[in-house]
Amino acid sequence: MTDFFAGIPKIAYEGPETDNEFAFRHYNPDEIVAGRRLEDHLRFAVAYWHSFAWEGGDPFGGRTFDRPWYPQDTMENARLKADAAFEMFALLGQPFFCFHDADVRPEGATLAESVARLDEITDYFAEKMEETGTRLLWGTANLFTHRRYMAGAATNPDPEVFAYAGATIKACMDATMKLGGENYVLWGGREGYVTLLNTDLSREADQMAAMLAKVVDYKHKIGFKGTILVEPKPQEPSKHQYDYDVATVYGFLKRYGLENEVKVNIEQGHAILAGHSFEHEIALAASLGIFGSIDMNRNDYQSGWDTDQFPNNVPEVTLAYYEILKAGGFTTGGTNFDAKIRRQSIDPADLILAHVGAMDVCARALKAAAAMLEDGTLERLRAERYAGWDTEEGRRLLSRETGLEALDALVRERGLDPQPRSGRQERLENLVNRFV
Amino acid sequence: MTDFFAGIPKIAYEGPETDNEFAFRHYNPDEIVAGRRLEDHLRFAVAYWHSFAWEGGDPFGGRTFDRPWYPQDTMENARLKADAAFEMFALLGQPFFCFHDADVRPEGATLAESVARLDEITDYFAEKMEETGTRLLWGTANLFTHRRYMAGAATNPDPEVFAYAGATIKACMDATMKLGGENYVLWGGREGYVTLLNTDLSREADQMAAMLAKVVDYKHKIGFKGTILVEPKPQEPSKHQYDYDVATVYGFLKRYGLENEVKVNIEQGHAILAGHSFEHEIALAASLGIFGSIDMNRNDYQSGWDTDQFPNNVPEVTLAYYEILKAGGFTTGGTNFDAKIRRQSIDPADLILAHVGAMDVCARALKAAAAMLEDGTLERLRAERYAGWDTEEGRRLLSRETGLEALDALVRERGLDPQPRSGRQERLENLVNRFV
Amino acid sequence: MTDFFAGIPKIAYEGPETDNEFAFRHYNPDEIVAGRRLEDHLRFAVAYWHSFAWEGGDPFGGRTFDRPWYPQDTMENARLKADAAFEMFALLGQPFFCFHDADVRPEGATLAESVARLDEITDYFAEKMEETGTRLLWGTANLFTHRRYMAGAATNPDPEVFAYAGATIKACMDATMKLGGENYVLWGGREGYVTLLNTDLSREADQMAAMLAKVVDYKHKIGFKGTILVEPKPQEPSKHQYDYDVATVYGFLKRYGLENEVKVNIEQGHAILAGHSFEHEIALAASLGIFGSIDMNRNDYQSGWDTDQFPNNVPEVTLAYYEILKAGGFTTGGTNFDAKIRRQSIDPADLILAHVGAMDVCARALKAAAAMLEDGTLERLRAERYAGWDTEEGRRLLSRETGLEALDALVRERGLDPQPRSGRQERLENLVNRFV
Amino acid sequence: MTDFFAGIPKIAYEGPETDNEFAFRHYNPDEIVAGRRLEDHLRFAVAYWHSFAWEGGDPFGGRTFDRPWYPQDTMENARLKADAAFEMFALLGQPFFCFHDADVRPEGATLAESVARLDEITDYFAEKMEETGTRLLWGTANLFTHRRYMAGAATNPDPEVFAYAGATIKACMDATMKLGGENYVLWGGREGYVTLLNTDLSREADQMAAMLAKVVDYKHKIGFKGTILVEPKPQEPSKHQYDYDVATVYGFLKRYGLENEVKVNIEQGHAILAGHSFEHEIALAASLGIFGSIDMNRNDYQSGWDTDQFPNNVPEVTLAYYEILKAGGFTTGGTNFDAKIRRQSIDPADLILAHVGAMDVCARALKAAAAMLEDGTLERLRAERYAGWDTEEGRRLLSRETGLEALDALVRERGLDPQPRSGRQERLENLVNRFV
Repeated sequence: MTDFFAGIPKIAYEGPETDNEFAFRHYNPDEIVAGRRLEDHLRFAVAYWHSFAWEGGDPFGGRTFDRPWYPQDTMENARLKADAAFEMFALLGQPFFCFHDADVRPEGATLAESVARLDEITDYFAEKMEETGTRLLWGTANLFTHRRYMAGAATNPDPEVFAYAGATIKACMDATMKLGGENYVLWGGREGYVTLLNTDLSREADQMAAMLAKVVDYKHKIGFKGTILVEPKPQEPSKHQYDYDVATVYGFLKRYGLENEVKVNIEQGHAILAGHSFEHEIALAASLGIFGSIDMNRNDYQSGWDTDQFPNNVPEVTLAYYEILKAGGFTTGGTNFDAKIRRQSIDPADLILAHVGAMDVCARALKAAAAMLEDGTLERLRAERYAGWDTEEGRRLLSRETGLEALDALVRERGLDPQPRSGRQERLENLVNRFV
Repeated sequence: MTDFFAGIPKIAYEGPETDNEFAFRHYNPDEIVAGRRLEDHLRFAVAYWHSFAWEGGDPFGGRTFDRPWYPQDTMENARLKADAAFEMFALLGQPFFCFHDADVRPEGATLAESVARLDEITDYFAEKMEETGTRLLWGTANLFTHRRYMAGAATNPDPEVFAYAGATIKACMDATMKLGGENYVLWGGREGYVTLLNTDLSREADQMAAMLAKVVDYKHKIGFKGTILVEPKPQEPSKHQYDYDVATVYGFLKRYGLENEVKVNIEQGHAILAGHSFEHEIALAASLGIFGSIDMNRNDYQSGWDTDQFPNNVPEVTLAYYEILKAGGFTTGGTNFDAKIRRQSIDPADLILAHVGAMDVCARALKAAAAMLEDGTLERLRAERYAGWDTEEGRRLLSRETGLEALDALVRERGLDPQPRSGRQERLENLVNRFV
Repeated sequence: MTDFFAGIPKIAYEGPETDNEFAFRHYNPDEIVAGRRLEDHLRFAVAYWHSFAWEGGDPFGGRTFDRPWYPQDTMENARLKADAAFEMFALLGQPFFCFHDADVRPEGATLAESVARLDEITDYFAEKMEETGTRLLWGTANLFTHRRYMAGAATNPDPEVFAYAGATIKACMDATMKLGGENYVLWGGREGYVTLLNTDLSREADQMAAMLAKVVDYKHKIGFKGTILVEPKPQEPSKHQYDYDVATVYGFLKRYGLENEVKVNIEQGHAILAGHSFEHEIALAASLGIFGSIDMNRNDYQSGWDTDQFPNNVPEVTLAYYEILKAGGFTTGGTNFDAKIRRQSIDPADLILAHVGAMDVCARALKAAAAMLEDGTLERLRAERYAGWDTEEGRRLLSRETGLEALDALVRERGLDPQPRSGRQERLENLVNRFV
Repeated sequence: MTDFFAGIPKIAYEGPETDNEFAFRHYNPDEIVAGRRLEDHLRFAVAYWHSFAWEGGDPFGGRTFDRPWYPQDTMENARLKADAAFEMFALLGQPFFCFHDADVRPEGATLAESVARLDEITDYFAEKMEETGTRLLWGTANLFTHRRYMAGAATNPDPEVFAYAGATIKACMDATMKLGGENYVLWGGREGYVTLLNTDLSREADQMAAMLAKVVDYKHKIGFKGTILVEPKPQEPSKHQYDYDVATVYGFLKRYGLENEVKVNIEQGHAILAGHSFEHEIALAASLGIFGSIDMNRNDYQSGWDTDQFPNNVPEVTLAYYEILKAGGFTTGGTNFDAKIRRQSIDPADLILAHVGAMDVCARALKAAAAMLEDGTLERLRAERYAGWDTEEGRRLLSRETGLEALDALVRERGLDPQPRSGRQERLENLVNRFV
């Protein structure tokens, strides 16, 4: 045991009325909601990077945190970090975690050394997972921090960087497989461009697709049963990132015939940067058959970059879980807190309580969403709105056999002059407000 | 002849040094640039709606213009408007124009009446086009102004509205065909949603695809040789529009198997609202094989809505034409000024001079772009940057046969430690600045 | 009685568990919260313009509503509109309303006729106010819709427009005085510029200040006891508006010595367009001593224009009322719903239910805010954070007598090396979430 | 001599036709423009921080540059960095530079050590300035990078941090004075808040004003003749920064009676983040009498954070210099390139050529601006637009003696019905395009 969280108790459910800061008010993992334990609905995961590897820096300032595992350049400190991490998973009762290779071990002098270190630390993880029951929601490779990736990993103009990236992904997929990870994620922070003047969009798309195909092939080769997930983001750090949003990723997958092999991991902050609501991106992915998992955070709407704050707005989060539940809930996916405490939140308790508050917000939101679905009014009103399309004539109008001339004839013959009907937006918003 | 433009001379090319406000300084239609007349490169078109139908209103104020063809509710005034419009085309030497049905004739009490009026006014157009040599770049249907479309045209929950929209498109395609239009455009300002709470994304996508397929079928049935173009826009008036941007439209076309039948009409202002540069959207469309035509305007970068201003920044416009020329230039497409004079620009001369200035900006930009291409340095540097991929090993790394294990083996065997190379952004920007 | 709201009952408080759509769940006007009736805390007002004068148009489409008082160009219809409006005030139990001259009467052919019509309709209002007990929160002049104001009212380059605007303000102040209005508001939608190229910022600032001084002088002259309020907005319709945000208005008032005569009316949507949260603007105004009143609506965070939606997010609204209560609550100000139903919400019931839902959201929010204040933890933690400044040394450091040299000496003598303390953001957010 | 810039020649003016990448095409320092040497107009300065201290990191990646003066934690390397910096100043013929204390020396273990190191390195600078003729445009203190400032410097809740900041400012003012700096700048990246929940706006404003007053007092005490400049920025790194924009800073100065002692340093990127154009902020500052100096960079309009790119758009930059020239040009201020090469621009030549290109852009822009002013058409048209206000009646209408009643009487007596006049925006834009 480290003493990093000394004095902080295991967080237990005490109900809404408790005034214990170190307790759940809403998250009772065993509560049955819509036929499933709340823990199994939400499938929470801690993001290793923000919670353990990030040191509190921002573009205008350096490290603010003090952690016993700093500096993060030795395997000894990597193990100490893992000790603290698993202690936190246990304190919070978080069933899952997620990690990049770069979060968990210092980079080696060579690929071989980096991979060996990854093997070593993930063996250590395996023991701890065995002991604590924590599972791996997903693993991923950090292909954006090191300067070799400054101009892209798969989309780098230099084939050697592509090779290096591929070898790194292999190591991370191997580690994810070893740890029983339920998904493998690719986020392409450098797969994009900073200036179009030096960029060949066609080549880079082909390169990115080639790498993704190799990932899919390797998954099958090693018998990995998890889901391959791409995480959209429109920009930051790049001026333009190729995995812009869900619709863009879908088009890319279709273009290269990978739409049945790959799904998406959707982040609230990234949705916002792309001009979408979180629930839009989830609903769209579900509609396209590529919904996989979520990163649950929030952005500051007044800031033009990814602020990755812990979620705190129940009505907003409810709409996200509503779309997830409507789509059948998570299968391999889950709720990863890709959220970081503010750089001024330097106390260990801040780290714990940020998760506690966020888990409660998600629990309230999921329960509200389940109640809305069970109530059924919203879905009934939606269905009624489109009821005309479920008639025989509706289906006939839609079919390709009915051409524009037939539509023209229909309008003229019947003297159609269709009258608008209320969209009832405010009434639907009132309805939602009964539940949140 | 109307006297609307009384006192305004035909605009002629007088060269950069003239101090005549009513002359071109840069646009000489017969100047040969890269083997083609400037007029044939740029293929300018006047947007009938902004220049003749819009009355100067904005969300906080009504009509500011005084035009002899107001009120626009009689066929007589529609003809007067046409007279003035063709006078302007002639004054400017604009070879093309574009229109919606709603711009050119008042809506009738029934579909039949609306179509009859459209036929009547487009017959009148045909005479004038014959006389003046002006051609039609594209026609389109206004499926967003009338209240029947408030909840969508093709994506309306009411099948009757879908039918009405289809019949209207048919009429507009017929008119476009009759007038020898070179393209037919669909912009879906109401094909999206205002609240996800009342929206079924899956149904609406199917409806939109069904309508687009009918358009394609009808094109072939009537033997229309022009290009079907979809115009992306992310939002405004809707909160979310389905044709969000080029990448989204591509995914949609692929999903429904229409990617070989439909191309895109890209607007600078819409690109910006979607978070992209204009040149990005053009380059992407070219890369995906769906580049068609452009709407040339500019947005105010400090305003969050489509300001549709006349272009005035030569360096910015140069980058757009560079991508167009690199992609081979326009075929059926052209440069439509989907730009409107400010609502305070109430004099007829303002309307003329806005076009004059914009045509000069485009001419300067196209000449600069052509010179950059001819110079070749930019393309040479781009090609050199990716040269590693043109080697046999580069191709081998990319091929699906080379899996992640092979990449891993390669890195280990060679002890690869790829070093970053400068992206040279500022030097490339300096290079561009030699031409603009 | 009109039959516009036929079938819609008077809205009564039925408590959170009711499933009656036409009832308040949270707004019980007589409930005592923090020593004051809820009605007296919230001081709700209906915005006449959005609810009765706006016809459902947007930049891409026209009227969608059908109202018995259309077309709005006769005094008879103006009276019919007033009948319906006062019926709605009564149905909702809204204690206040707000109006522009242009909302309530058609513009006359001359100023004299316009003023006479305003007098006539406001006499009619006076009778209805007497009957129903509804009061006037504020009146204002519409100096932005008519084309004469296209280049500004007070800031117009033409002194005649300035004079016309002044005369119009006089009429509106007279009407507001007559009706016992508690405030008079100025919103300068055209007081700004569209292009800096034709604008003289110095002149226009002097003109705007001159008009505001005249307003203040006239207030005193006629003995109007209400508050003069300026409403900040950064842009839309203008590219730049002079009353950009609270800080800008404060600087303007200080520059011209009007800071003790004028306060601000803060709108949530305008705050957002200026890059601020609503609570920021309220807290800042309170800190500067110029807080007056609010327009309660919400913007869509994904849209770059003022969407003016009814509020629906309780946690968000709570933070706004928290700042208001912390500042002592409203005096002459109140909660004006400067919100409009969506243009697809065409049924009379939509209009009623939008207000019902919004009033409930505000009631929940105010009660939560009051409970947070009463609980006191948040304020205690805030005070503790700055406690060092309340010591004698803290005060000494701050005083002008203590110069940089003294600070330098202090640091050196004591060997100061101040250590950061946690900002505890997430814990404070958790605390807020206990109340909302 | 270091060999960092080995092989790079001194940059000389060779005229627009040269194809030497390492030459000025437009910046001829001795060219006389509007009666002044170009060098004396532009007063270029290199920003030490971006060009020499920044290592190429961004929020998602670390150092990309390789510089002989890394790691930057010894005084020996600080001197080596200074050697390279002054070599670059000489290569470019940049007359000025600017620095923060943290750019030029490693932080010491104590304040005393930090100040001693600053003294030592600035003595070294003094020798080099003597040798090379380079001057100091301004110095400033970095009060944002170190963790002690994470919650503010002057606005920190801890008075000890305030004291530490004040002592640090004193040292930087002393160094600036010693080196003959022409201005002293304060940028408050942490003077703002991340969450309003833990913030006391009133206290923090008083603290910030207290510090600024101490700075002003110390300036006078030591006889510093330069200008005290505040640099506005709306946010980043903070969620909200108090020096939001020019208007906000003006209001703050007025509130605390400092408006005659302090001016502003305006950055293009910061203007954009605040929703303004660069030229707006300059024109406003000039109008308010607080224009001081500029940071010349550009932001990417599609990115929501400060990208600090080298300027490359001549038309845009022209509008900025136009406002500066109109206001009389720089006095103590100048053109500081607060711009950084992209992190992929890792070659020494990139650093040089970024400045070369930017200096040429500025030179072209200033010459175009001067020509526009000399031409006089734009100013003549502006003056004509407001000519009505220069009549006796115009002045009378504006005076406080003329009340609203007099305006009303005037409109009625004369039957005024003012007609709008064209704002001629596009014609003015065409006019500008003749010069750029």
